[in-house]
Amino acid sequence: MAMAASSLFTCSFREGMCSPETKTSYKNLMCNYVNLTRKQLGCYGSMYLRHPRFLHDEESMKLEQPGRDSKRNGILCRAVKTDNPPFTVGKKFELDDVIEAQQFDRDILNAIFEVAQDMEKIKKNSSGSQILKGYLMATLFYEPSTRTRLSFESAMKRLGGEVLTTENAREFSSAAKGETLEDTIRTVEGYSDIIVMRHFESGAAKKAAATAGIPVINAGDGPGQHPTQALLDVYTIEREIGKLDGIKVGLVGDLANGRTVRSLAYLLAKYKDVKIYFVSPEVVNMKDDIKDYLTSMGIEWEESADLIDVANKCDVVYQTRIQRERFGERIDLYEEARGKYIVDRRILEVMPKHAVVMHPLPRLDEITVDVDVDPRAAYFRQAKNGLYIRMALLKLLLLGW
Amino acid sequence: MAMAASSLFTCSFREGMCSPETKTSYKNLMCNYVNLTRKQLGCYGSMYLRHPRFLHDEESMKLEQPGRDSKRNGILCRAVKTDNPPFTVGKKFELDDVIEAQQFDRDILNAIFEVAQDMEKIKKNSSGSQILKGYLMATLFYEPSTRTRLSFESAMKRLGGEVLTTENAREFSSAAKGETLEDTIRTVEGYSDIIVMRHFESGAAKKAAATAGIPVINAGDGPGQHPTQALLDVYTIEREIGKLDGIKVGLVGDLANGRTVRSLAYLLAKYKDVKIYFVSPEVVNMKDDIKDYLTSMGIEWEESADLIDVANKCDVVYQTRIQRERFGERIDLYEEARGKYIVDRRILEVMPKHAVVMHPLPRLDEITVDVDVDPRAAYFRQAKNGLYIRMALLKLLLLGW
Amino acid sequence: MAMAASSLFTCSFREGMCSPETKTSYKNLMCNYVNLTRKQLGCYGSMYLRHPRFLHDEESMKLEQPGRDSKRNGILCRAVKTDNPPFTVGKKFELDDVIEAQQFDRDILNAIFEVAQDMEKIKKNSSGSQILKGYLMATLFYEPSTRTRLSFESAMKRLGGEVLTTENAREFSSAAKGETLEDTIRTVEGYSDIIVMRHFESGAAKKAAATAGIPVINAGDGPGQHPTQALLDVYTIEREIGKLDGIKVGLVGDLANGRTVRSLAYLLAKYKDVKIYFVSPEVVNMKDDIKDYLTSMGIEWEESADLIDVANKCDVVYQTRIQRERFGERIDLYEEARGKYIVDRRILEVMPKHAVVMHPLPRLDEITVDVDVDPRAAYFRQAKNGLYIRMALLKLLLLGW
Repeated sequence: MAMAASSLFTCSFREGMCSPETKTSYKNLMCNYVNLTRKQLGCYGSMYLRHPRFLHDEESMKLEQPGRDSKRNGILCRAVKTDNPPFTVGKKFELDDVIEAQQFDRDILNAIFEVAQDMEKIKKNSSGSQILKGYLMATLFYEPSTRTRLSFESAMKRLGGEVLTTENAREFSSAAKGETLEDTIRTVEGYSDIIVMRHFESGAAKKAAATAGIPVINAGDGPGQHPTQALLDVYTIEREIGKLDGIKVGLVGDLANGRTVRSLAYLLAKYKDVKIYFVSPEVVNMKDDIKDYLTSMGIEWEESADLIDVANKCDVVYQTRIQRERFGERIDLYEEARGKYIVDRRILEVMPKHAVVMHPLPRLDEITVDVDVDPRAAYFRQAKNGLYIRMALLKLLLLGW
Repeated sequence: MAMAASSLFTCSFREGMCSPETKTSYKNLMCNYVNLTRKQLGCYGSMYLRHPRFLHDEESMKLEQPGRDSKRNGILCRAVKTDNPPFTVGKKFELDDVIEAQQFDRDILNAIFEVAQDMEKIKKNSSGSQILKGYLMATLFYEPSTRTRLSFESAMKRLGGEVLTTENAREFSSAAKGETLEDTIRTVEGYSDIIVMRHFESGAAKKAAATAGIPVINAGDGPGQHPTQALLDVYTIEREIGKLDGIKVGLVGDLANGRTVRSLAYLLAKYKDVKIYFVSPEVVNMKDDIKDYLTSMGIEWEESADLIDVANKCDVVYQTRIQRERFGERIDLYEEARGKYIVDRRILEVMPKHAVVMHPLPRLDEITVDVDVDPRAAYFRQAKNGLYIRMALLKLLLLGW
Repeated sequence: MAMAASSLFTCSFREGMCSPETKTSYKNLMCNYVNLTRKQLGCYGSMYLRHPRFLHDEESMKLEQPGRDSKRNGILCRAVKTDNPPFTVGKKFELDDVIEAQQFDRDILNAIFEVAQDMEKIKKNSSGSQILKGYLMATLFYEPSTRTRLSFESAMKRLGGEVLTTENAREFSSAAKGETLEDTIRTVEGYSDIIVMRHFESGAAKKAAATAGIPVINAGDGPGQHPTQALLDVYTIEREIGKLDGIKVGLVGDLANGRTVRSLAYLLAKYKDVKIYFVSPEVVNMKDDIKDYLTSMGIEWEESADLIDVANKCDVVYQTRIQRERFGERIDLYEEARGKYIVDRRILEVMPKHAVVMHPLPRLDEITVDVDVDPRAAYFRQAKNGLYIRMALLKLLLLGW
């Protein structure tokens, strides 16, 4: 059935794929968007598989060259020539897009973490730092997020890639007084090789990925997902503690609204003998869906009101910020919640020597500044790990393993 | 006469031209701005010819090297060394700036289109993709236009060039509470090799070009011109239909206010046996100046209220958006105008197999989304062609043919 | 004592310094921030010395390679390999950060100016233009300043470096509703190699430099300092007049509020036989602190109400803008002050042939546009010199002499 459809959508706008050599009309290559669902295609396991593009054999032959897309088992891959390549290139990454934490299983997490660790070793001006040379990443931000944007842009540039920046992506549609996200994506994919999108609406990233012929990375969509944050958190635990099976993690602060801790709990459930402690003011307790999920996965968890006790037992104390904007007029409740569980030197005193304090940042005073000098304060290292995780994902999505 | 003036303006701020080798005063090179009109110089045909810079012979000799400016017949050219150059380099582009559609005649359009087509074939990391390495483009946007800006920045980066971005160029003058555009240009030309400018005032681009010692591209100046859009439209027709002589084009929608359709009509008049149909709600009919111009050029045109009939006869149906902001309080008139001529599957049914639907984007519902899957829906390919046209213009202005 | 502390802070987040080769925990490298004051370390003369980072000998050995940091006399240096290096590389620059004009003495100014002059000669696509390849500069602007930002970004890109841009750095803290500057710096230094910061608060740059493990350049902090402007002014005088000792400079306009003229007066005091004339409306006279300082340094100065007379005697007429915002409701006083000392053709007539007019830009009508064509109008060359000074500082801070 997919083959029957092949005459309908032979190519997309991806660079170098629509390049007829002659000066005649190129409409017969039919660069169009067909709304075949991925389920209809059904020839590949990934949830986020892109539409395969079927090429005439002749075209296909020409494409089997370094720097071009080529077809392997009906799936387009991209081979890239670099001087003295430091990474194996060619085997396709299992994911076409990075949209939500649920896409990742234990094996793929481990494999990504190995690539991230390779990224830590890349030297300036080395061939490794030029593997994405010639690639363009568009940062399509519908709401500003300087921190996340800089991290992605740094990752791309550290690998020799280039960036098209827009922090006012809403202007796309406002100018038009109503352009759809899909139309915007179709335009931007004509100018770039990968899209990093931040949006104010949950589900926007999935919609963009379904439209785009190039990879999409979700850099946060409203109350929805922020998968690269979840990955860097797990990566940091692995790097700091040296293992993920058997760890004890205390999640502290705003557990009701923080998508960070929710995603982290979700990913930790993929490991063995994990124990999770929830420490939060009552008004922002962890919600039942995550608790039920952990139980169903056989993960031990308990709620505690005693941060000292939890800090004494845990490998990781993961602190988060109480978000004032969730309390509306009730500033009294906010102030009460906010002052309840502070990580300070008293907490450090009871924490094991090998344990660490983590925080997704920015922090206010939920971790006191005198904690910063302690080697167990891992939060700035954690921020830096975001760079390596994003370098790894960009490499994998654009070049494969 | 030009020679008499030569002692007055020996050089501009263009990179590499003011580089005395000694540590003594360099004021004797006299880098100043002389308000000789181009007419006074009168030694070159182009309307947008820059001031020639006269160099002492000794200086001139030193400049005859790759990567430097050099004087040819009194006009400065730039030779560029690249490994294995994919383009002929050296012969000066006939234009110094791209300011308005009127600058382009049929021959130069054809030549630009050939370069644009070469651009489609450039591979990542090839020598072709590095021809603008070391060049800096400043995007000086006095009003945001993310779509246009990304397209230009992508074009520059695809050719190995670099970009200085400013979307808040108004801040230049607001900070100063009144710096002139000319002063801003003189500052920015010190930091870059080419300026792409978007302005809210008609004529601003021409003013900038008259001041700048480096090329200026008009990326839209208020209700005035947006010449690269006009070029990409004609280029798209040529690529999609395979010819420009003898084509039939239906211009649909807001013909009174759309600078796009006005420029397109203007450029089509340069070709033979063209027939144009105007299809628009009465309140936004094509204005008489364009109709008169077409008549004077011997181009056949007619107005029609029957989109089905026009679609049946045309090679190109060029749809545009009805702009709500033109209707003020009369939302009823807007709604009526807006719903009148929609391109949908009924239109596709009567369109010839070889014909295409175009649109400058963004679109609302004047083309229904079910049209997108038809191979004749050319509007996203058209957007992509903007990239190739801009790559071509950047190449031509900076390196010549 | 410094050695005793060495076990506490072995490394910072600087790229390539925290790269354990094994997959085990890397917390034992203890990448933390210790609040030892620089005075406590006290092993180096510079006021802005960064914390030295002490490395295990083994690590240190590995780092003695091109492109890596290496330890010399207890101070980390960075060696960089380039093809055919145009600059001597390796000897550490005396400054770790550029925060205020007071950091510079006569010798270091002269040495910086020599590097700036080398920068003028760098050719596109030469090895010289790639010396900062692989380096990332973050422009962290808490208030927009397009002019200054573009100048720094152009400088970085002219040397082959890359840029992370943020003009809305306030968003960092607003998103967090109160992240400290220190935390922001610790995050951004993880993504970049050098930070150029513009801030609305005096002293912010010094605070950032004290936190950062990478160099910080002050691009203006409120009413405080703007040291690169001061440097480019002195550099311009040296380039235009050919000397600094023995020059006569007229400072004109708003001398009370202009940080530019205050810094310039401060730096000129480092040279011999300098004579300074202050010409300003009474309400914005030069303040006593600078006058006292000049007197204490043996620099002659006088106040004058006669611009013609001063212009007749000076090598440099340095005009500045009267800032309306300083006058509040008293627009009458503003208008009076503003019209009092205008540089026009009458001033040019009495100025010596070798003299120049300077202005920090933007200008309004305190210099009439008919002055622009005179070779002695140096203000646009002055703006361009800002590029060379910033290129020199970036080179020196990142690569050393």
